[in-house]
Amino acid sequence: MHLAQVIGRVVATRKHEALEGVKLLLIQPVDHEGSPKSEPIVAVDPLQAGEGDTVAYITGREAALALDETFTPVDAGIVGIVDSVNHEEG
Amino acid sequence: MHLAQVIGRVVATRKHEALEGVKLLLIQPVDHEGSPKSEPIVAVDPLQAGEGDTVAYITGREAALALDETFTPVDAGIVGIVDSVNHEEG
Amino acid sequence: MHLAQVIGRVVATRKHEALEGVKLLLIQPVDHEGSPKSEPIVAVDPLQAGEGDTVAYITGREAALALDETFTPVDAGIVGIVDSVNHEEG
Amino acid sequence: MHLAQVIGRVVATRKHEALEGVKLLLIQPVDHEGSPKSEPIVAVDPLQAGEGDTVAYITGREAALALDETFTPVDAGIVGIVDSVNHEEG
Amino acid sequence: MHLAQVIGRVVATRKHEALEGVKLLLIQPVDHEGSPKSEPIVAVDPLQAGEGDTVAYITGREAALALDETFTPVDAGIVGIVDSVNHEEG
Repeated sequence: MHLAQVIGRVVATRKHEALEGVKLLLIQPVDHEGSPKSEPIVAVDPLQAGEGDTVAYITGREAALALDETFTPVDAGIVGIVDSVNHEEG
Repeated sequence: MHLAQVIGRVVATRKHEALEGVKLLLIQPVDHEGSPKSEPIVAVDPLQAGEGDTVAYITGREAALALDETFTPVDAGIVGIVDSVNHEEG
Repeated sequence: MHLAQVIGRVVATRKHEALEGVKLLLIQPVDHEGSPKSEPIVAVDPLQAGEGDTVAYITGREAALALDETFTPVDAGIVGIVDSVNHEEG
Repeated sequence: MHLAQVIGRVVATRKHEALEGVKLLLIQPVDHEGSPKSEPIVAVDPLQAGEGDTVAYITGREAALALDETFTPVDAGIVGIVDSVNHEEG
Repeated sequence: MHLAQVIGRVVATRKHEALEGVKLLLIQPVDHEGSPKSEPIVAVDPLQAGEGDTVAYITGREAALALDETFTPVDAGIVGIVDSVNHEEG
């Protein structure tokens, strides 16, 4: 799992039928201290995350498991809204 | 999911039988502002996207879910034609 | 499989129901000599690893196999607590 | 899918039983203009591609779908022999 | 598939039960000419490879297919011991 911040939405009228009604968010991957890293990606959101929320997301075939319909063609999904990251220096 | 722009087609006469009749597009990955990033890849297209369209695509085993025959050997597939990306600065 | 050191925890109250009761650790990938490499990630932990432990972890869809409920939407999981790495120079 | 050129073969007498009789090729990934990029990899070839051919290949679990026995442990497979890549500048 | 050289072993007493009795090797990825590339990783070995052997390995969910128990949580497995790589310059 990786951490990211919600920064926008993606609108696609013409899409795969299994994606009808599925919310697509633009998320900015961040490190455990909240600093941006790598490029924003598009993820499905079954948790109703809001703009600015820090989320935990997963990638790959398993991302569809975040949805009710697990054969939906997606590869990135939000699975948790993060309250805090407790990091002790090793 | 990632964003890309359709930039061409790939023609392969001799191919895996499950790929017969499947359209193969050359797509250029772009960021959320439409700027090119990384190398073009080849993706299956069940949505009849046209040259210049911005699309959302997925990668990996799950890409086959974009097709009717889900055991087709593909690893990148177009799942939406993007109307707009709404990005508010965090 | 890759090696990592446990460096913290991630707390998420609102999350996918299959993740209820699943422990989420922040782990720092390390090389075979224990030096940090790449960014910390979030992994599920079914083995009760402690802060500072060196662990072997896996990524991708198969990470869910580390849990009792194999359809849980996760993509990184701890599968072993490492006692030693025996490395002879080739 | 990605493009590559066939540049050699890999011989392995002692191997997983499901790989008996499966041809292993060394392929050099190329971009859409035929220029080499990244490192050569080893892929299974069910299409009898020859030295110098340009091929389309897939990676990951889905690569096994290119073979008759879909539970073969492989992660890269050739699925098409490319005749041409039509690329119009966007 | 990728090529690697066996350079050591990983010992983990406390681990996922499906990994009991499974041999874990430290392998150094190499290119087709035998030169090291990228970081060593940990792979399961069902073929009894020895120190210094060149092996072909796979990554991802499909790595478990290299073992008798295909639901074992692993993501890298050795599938062949390489005799030779025949590389003709294209």
